[in-house]
This record gives sequence, C-alpha cells and structure tokens, in this order.
Amino acid sequence: MPVLNGSYTRSTGRRVDRNRPPFYAACMVPQWVIEKKRNGDELTDEEIRWFIDGYGAEEIPDYQMAALAMAVFFQGMTGREVTTLTDAMMRSGDLLDTSSVAVPKADKHSTGGVGDKVSLVLAPLVACCGIAVPMISGRGLGITGGTLDKLESIPGYRTDLSTGEFLAVVRECGCSIIGQTARLAPVDKRLYALRDVTGTVPSIPLISASILSKKMAEGIDALVLDVKWGNGAFMKTEEQARELARTMATIVAGMDKRVAAVLTAMVEPLGHAAGNAVEVMESIEALQGRGPADLMEVTLTLAAHMLWLCDRAPSVPEARSMLEETIDSGAAFGKWIEMAAAHGADTSFLENPSRFPAPAMRHELKADRDGFVTAVDAESVGRACVVLGGGRRRVEDRVDHAVGIVDLAKVGCPVRRGDRLATVLANDAARLEEALALLDPALRIGDEKPDPPPLIGEVMTGNEPATNRSEA
Amino acid sequence: MPVLNGSYTRSTGRRVDRNRPPFYAACMVPQWVIEKKRNGDELTDEEIRWFIDGYGAEEIPDYQMAALAMAVFFQGMTGREVTTLTDAMMRSGDLLDTSSVAVPKADKHSTGGVGDKVSLVLAPLVACCGIAVPMISGRGLGITGGTLDKLESIPGYRTDLSTGEFLAVVRECGCSIIGQTARLAPVDKRLYALRDVTGTVPSIPLISASILSKKMAEGIDALVLDVKWGNGAFMKTEEQARELARTMATIVAGMDKRVAAVLTAMVEPLGHAAGNAVEVMESIEALQGRGPADLMEVTLTLAAHMLWLCDRAPSVPEARSMLEETIDSGAAFGKWIEMAAAHGADTSFLENPSRFPAPAMRHELKADRDGFVTAVDAESVGRACVVLGGGRRRVEDRVDHAVGIVDLAKVGCPVRRGDRLATVLANDAARLEEALALLDPALRIGDEKPDPPPLIGEVMTGNEPATNRSEA
Repeated sequence: MPVLNGSYTRSTGRRVDRNRPPFYAACMVPQWVIEKKRNGDELTDEEIRWFIDGYGAEEIPDYQMAALAMAVFFQGMTGREVTTLTDAMMRSGDLLDTSSVAVPKADKHSTGGVGDKVSLVLAPLVACCGIAVPMISGRGLGITGGTLDKLESIPGYRTDLSTGEFLAVVRECGCSIIGQTARLAPVDKRLYALRDVTGTVPSIPLISASILSKKMAEGIDALVLDVKWGNGAFMKTEEQARELARTMATIVAGMDKRVAAVLTAMVEPLGHAAGNAVEVMESIEALQGRGPADLMEVTLTLAAHMLWLCDRAPSVPEARSMLEETIDSGAAFGKWIEMAAAHGADTSFLENPSRFPAPAMRHELKADRDGFVTAVDAESVGRACVVLGGGRRRVEDRVDHAVGIVDLAKVGCPVRRGDRLATVLANDAARLEEALALLDPALRIGDEKPDPPPLIGEVMTGNEPATNRSEA
Repeated sequence: MPVLNGSYTRSTGRRVDRNRPPFYAACMVPQWVIEKKRNGDELTDEEIRWFIDGYGAEEIPDYQMAALAMAVFFQGMTGREVTTLTDAMMRSGDLLDTSSVAVPKADKHSTGGVGDKVSLVLAPLVACCGIAVPMISGRGLGITGGTLDKLESIPGYRTDLSTGEFLAVVRECGCSIIGQTARLAPVDKRLYALRDVTGTVPSIPLISASILSKKMAEGIDALVLDVKWGNGAFMKTEEQARELARTMATIVAGMDKRVAAVLTAMVEPLGHAAGNAVEVMESIEALQGRGPADLMEVTLTLAAHMLWLCDRAPSVPEARSMLEETIDSGAAFGKWIEMAAAHGADTSFLENPSRFPAPAMRHELKADRDGFVTAVDAESVGRACVVLGGGRRRVEDRVDHAVGIVDLAKVGCPVRRGDRLATVLANDAARLEEALALLDPALRIGDEKPDPPPLIGEVMTGNEPATNRSEA
C-alpha cells in the first residue's frame, strides 16, 4: 500500500538552505504541493526545490511525481516556477566548471529535426570567432536525428570524453561535442522516463525544464535555441513552438544568462542529406563554402546570435559577415578537423569523404512529370531514415551509419520528368522497399511554384547585450 | 528507472473475456489509456477494465494509476465510464452471494455526517418490513462518525463476522451490520491510499466508484443513498452533493439495481447526541418511538424509499406509515435487540442503557442570553468529538466509546439565559478544555428565529418500480 511515511524531514541535495527555519521541512507534505498545483496556485521556490530534491533522494516516490507532472500538464507553470524547476533539476547533478576557459562560453540547442546537421557546422565556425562551445549533445530518437550518431560515423571519434578531457578540448580547440554523462541532471533522466509512461510528455514547462536542466549545466554565458516547428519537428505548429521558445527564453534569462530563441520551419529536411555519415559529408561541404542555402541560413542565423550575445560583434548582421569570412578563409573547416582530431577521429575521412564506407545499394527516385517540387515531407524522410536503419525506434536500437537519403530536391525547385528527386542509400533490400514506399508519396510535384513558410521566423531574446544592436 | 515492460499481455481478473481477439491485449499500453483520458476522450469499457485489472494484478504500477487519477480529476468521466470503473473495482474482490436470502435485499449508504446514527435505527426497522439489509459499514474518519465504532461500544458486539456468519444473520434476523473484509474491493483499498497521497481525493467519479465498488458487492437489489452537504459533511455545498448524488445514482442504475439518492442537510448534528455509546443510546430512544424529529425525518425518508424500491409499499408515503407503525408496535426495537444478540452483544446494555460506562467528567454548556438557537455548527461538534477521543485523526487511532456530546440544542429552539445547550462527556480534563473551546463559539444564540435550509432536499431515483408511485 503506497502510504508515505508521515514525516519527510529533510532532503539531500546540496541546494537546501541549511539556515532554513526548522519548521520548514516539517510543514511540507508532498500531496499538499501536488494539491496546490492541481488547484492552479503558484508553487513557491522552496516547494519546487523540496519536491525535486526529495524525488532525487528517492524520498518522494514516482507516483507522487507522476501526479504532480499531470497536474503541471493541466495547470502549467509560471516563468518563475519553471525557472526554479529547471535550476533544481540541473543541480541534481554535476555542473561543469568552465572557469578555466578564458573566453565567453556559448552553446546552441535545437529541438530536433530531419537533416539537421547544424551543430557540426556551427561549433567549429563559432569557435573560430573566439567563443568556446562546450556542447553536450544527444542521440536521435524517432524521426529526428542525433548529433552523436552522426559524429560516431567518423571512425575513432570519441563522444564519451571525461569531464576533464572535455574541458581540455574546449580550452585548447575552442569547441567539443560529447554525449551526456550519468551525472548530468540525473533527476531529469528519471523524470523523463516517468513522463514517457504516464502521459505527461507534451507539457511545455516539463519539456523546457528537461532540455535546459541539461544544457544550463554546461557553465555557459549564452544560449541560442533553435525551436523548430512543422511535421518534421516535435512541435507541429508555429504557435506551439512559439510557446516553447518563450518558455525556454524566460528560463535562461531567469538564470541570468543571455539567450536568443529562433523559430525555424521544419517542413522539408534541412539541406540535401538525411542520415549519419551523409550528414557529416554535408557539414564538410558547408564548412568548405558549398553548403545548401537553407542549412547555411539556419546555421549563420544561430551562430550570428551567439557572436552578438557574447559581444563578439556589435550586431547580428555584422556577426554574420564575420562568420561568412571565417568560412571563406578555410579557418572553420580547419577547426572541424582540429576538433575531430582532438576527439581521436581519423581525420582523413573528413579530408577525403569518399573514404566513408559505401552502402550496398543506391536507388534514385525520379520525377514522373515536369513542374515544381511542392513538398519534400520531412516527417516521411525522417521515417524512411529510421526504416533504413539510420535512426532509432527505441533507445536501445543500433544505428547504421552508412544509410540515408541524399540528393534531396528542395521545395520550389523546377524539375523535368526524369530528373532525380532523391537517392536512397540502403544496406538491405526489404528496408529499401519500405523506405521507397514512404518516400514516393512524400516527394510531390505540382504545376504552381509553391509558397513555403519562411525558414527563419520570430527571434526572442533575453538579457541582450546592453550596448549592441540586434539588427543593423 | 520506471520503464514498464514493453508488452503487457494479459490481466489476471476473472472478468477478462477469454474470447477477446488476441490483438486486444497486445495493443493496450497504459500510457495510451492515460493520454486518452488526459485529452478528454471517453475510455472504452475494455480500456477501463484492463487498466483496473492490471493495477489489481500489480502489472500496472502506482505511478501510472496516479497519473490516470489526476487526469480523471481534471477531465471527469461519463456515466458509462464511471459505472464500468465501479464494476471493475468491485469485481477486484469477492462478491457477496445473497441467493440464499429469499426476500429482497437493500441497503443504505450515507456519505457521513456528525451525529448520524441512522444506520442503527434503519437496519432493524427495514428488516421488520420484509427486506433483508446486508450492511457493510466503515469506521469514522475525521469529523464524521463511523457505524462500526458506535456498534463496538456495545460490549460483545462482533463487527468481524465471517461471510458465512454474516449471511446467516441476514437470513435469520433480516439485517446485519459488519465491517469490511480484506477481500472486499481490494483495488479500492489500494487506490484510496494512493489518492490520499497524490492529491486525487476530491474527484466525484473517483469518490463515487470508491463508495459503490464496496457497496454494490453486497449483492443487493436496491440502494438508497444519503448524500449529505454542509459544513459537517464531506461535500460542503448542496451543488457538490447533487453532482455526487447524480453520479452515484447513475452508476447504481447502470448496474441494473434500483436506486434513490436523497440530498440531506448537515449543518447541525443529527439528533441530540454525537459520539459512540451516546449515539447507540439515542438509536434505542428512536426505535422506542422517542427519537429526535430530525433523526426520524432522515431515517424514515431513507427507509421509506427502500420499501418503495423493493415493492414493499405502493408509494413512499405509504411506506412511511408502515415504518411508523413498525416502531410504534415495538417490533423495530425488538429487531435491534435480536440483531445485536446475533452479533454476540450483551443486549442488557440496549435494554438498560444506564449500564453503559459513565465518563469521568460531564460539563454543561449554558445559554448566556435569551433568544433563539441560530447555529449548532456540525463541523465544530464533530471536531470536539475527535478532540475528546471519540473520533479519529488517523486511521490507526483508538476510539474512546464513552465520550461525546449529548443534550445538544436544535437550531430554531427558543432558549432562556441559563438553559442547557449541550453536555460534554469527557475522560480527560485537557481534552475537555479543548472541546469546550471548540464548542463555545459553535453554539450561537440570536434574536431572530433562524430559517435553516430544509433537512431533506432533492431525491433522485433510477430504475424505479414500474407500477408504483414515488409520491402519494
């Protein structure tokens, strides 16, 4: 019988104020906190920290956390509440001490999309401009790809550096991309698994706290958020993405860090490639100045905001010019090689991408009529990648780095019958068939040139540089 | 990490249809059921039964049940959903097989109040009119008294009869009042404890299913519900009580049983006595034809509906006349003695109530002015009883049967300065002081005769007798 012990007298985390009056802990009862949120009242900072600390210490059980999560789903959270929640979750684990890194520290987080290899281009590019990028990334799940999976397609690249190694690479190279350690926001890990099985995933405050409790543990001065919307993203509508962006920007600002949140459309894949090795190859092209327009637009917009937030440029457009020059000079591509080498990668793959293992099968999809490309459905392309083995259905699935989709046509392009719309790379005939069945209706041609939504939407900022301008 | 095993293939309860298509169980996932309710959609009977059976079999964990309960708190349940929920919870335990009882079986349930000794009067009274009353009762908790605690103030009375003994008493005597067995709706026992610590108690569907999953396991043909409202009841407003009454009547009717739900006011205690032995004594007076008007009004209204629902009278008023004659004849009091004897009680206490142990202290509260009694606050009287030791603060507390409050004045009575308003019976001086501090402001006198709400409010019925009339 799930009866809680009557007295919950203390929590374990190091965040608890030891000078708190003694009645405080004695007065707190988990169900009273749940009931307060259920009734739509605002929780105090003490209540939130006490609940999260208690959950972290396994003194508050899963069933009370599940009830609170469902109450939050229905009642939401104020900016102050969700900022405190994020901070409490972040402090459940280790915080990265970046004090040994002399330059400003900044990072970028994307809510995930199809063909989104922005991190691979952005990290070296920004590092060339005097900003350190200590990036802790995740793996792909569902239709959205994962930066770690892409990096691991480069032979030798280690995503599991120790904290000391990670900091050394950040200090010496200016950027490093690794995976999460077990000590990063452990409460988030448990809460995320709990939400997954209790119907409490789609809650903007809980999503925001989950993302930022990990990101803000990186010890950064500024964060740029790429909040994607569309059928290839977690948020299906621009309005949902706007709410998520607003909430996350509020949290980061509330933690006294500089922030910009950019709404971007994810209705077709970013660039021409979706997969793992193929996305690394496209990042090389991008850093060599031959990147697809949409990938460059998103990357430069996000990177320019990082420079501006870190006082490296007086305005976003001026930051953008700096970044374009950095690519043109070859410095950014050199930094990519340098970072990969620091992670133990065989950089000959980056210098000569034809070395990447070729898939067993290639299949071209051709236009069956003249016209304009009216849709390259991001969700279907993402699903096709998963089907090919390039993504995961479950967290424990292994990823095939060689498969994917390349040569993807872009929405709005004129095509003629017989033109190539995409090339599918596969290692299994049955999986290829399945992927083609998904892709065939996803690539659509019409008579009229379509009018897709703008790639870059609203930008929200917080704690902006006082003396700089965000626009020229 | 609370990750559920991927496949939940079967539940254990005997309610599961073995002929269900094989895909059925494989398709069900607890979080999908939670999400459906969370989104405000109606759950199917199969989903509800599967979830409750799975919880009963401990295949669905507390945290998923807690999340579902919170979703139900916010989204409510349709009449069909809550009927199925009740039935599934009821069938998690033993059902009483009353087929050996030849006459119609009926029971009464009250949502609980202060001074509510109706069951002690009603059970023998109704049993005299050819209706069997297999009553399974609860203990007092908070300010509301419990029938079992009152019965146990009679030396020798056993509330823990076996099912066989219980049925034998019902068959031979016509009525029996016992406590819950562990096999009565065990899922309700676990769910109730879970709701208590997850902020999901005040949900009309969950309250209704909890009450009726136990009551409807008694194998009865008809149920009369006394749904109380006021500061001495669980439901504080008549509107809340109406919603609870409507929901419970819908459930009983949906289970193809006859039902009447009566709204009654609980703003002052019922009768003149609140406690345990003192309420048994008042029940004796009531069955001897000397009961307080309000107690008799509630008892006769509820009992008359039982007779009418069981076709023992052509209308409620005619049933009431029958009941009054049964009291006047002495038959009802004789039945009270008979039932108590069948439970092992020393009936000399009922025949001579002066044998009940006297408390150590008696204290009279007197009117300090002339006027009318304008309030006898039920909640304060209930709290005073708990303070004296006659009620429980926690389920594990022991009850002092001798303490309580008697001689309570009734709202609307004219009084003169120095008249007695109540007598407090105590066994501890400090507790007496505490009780007096609660009672003093609870007994109020004013210049104007007050206009209290009617004691008996709306009556809702379901599956009424076809050929009978509910009113004369």
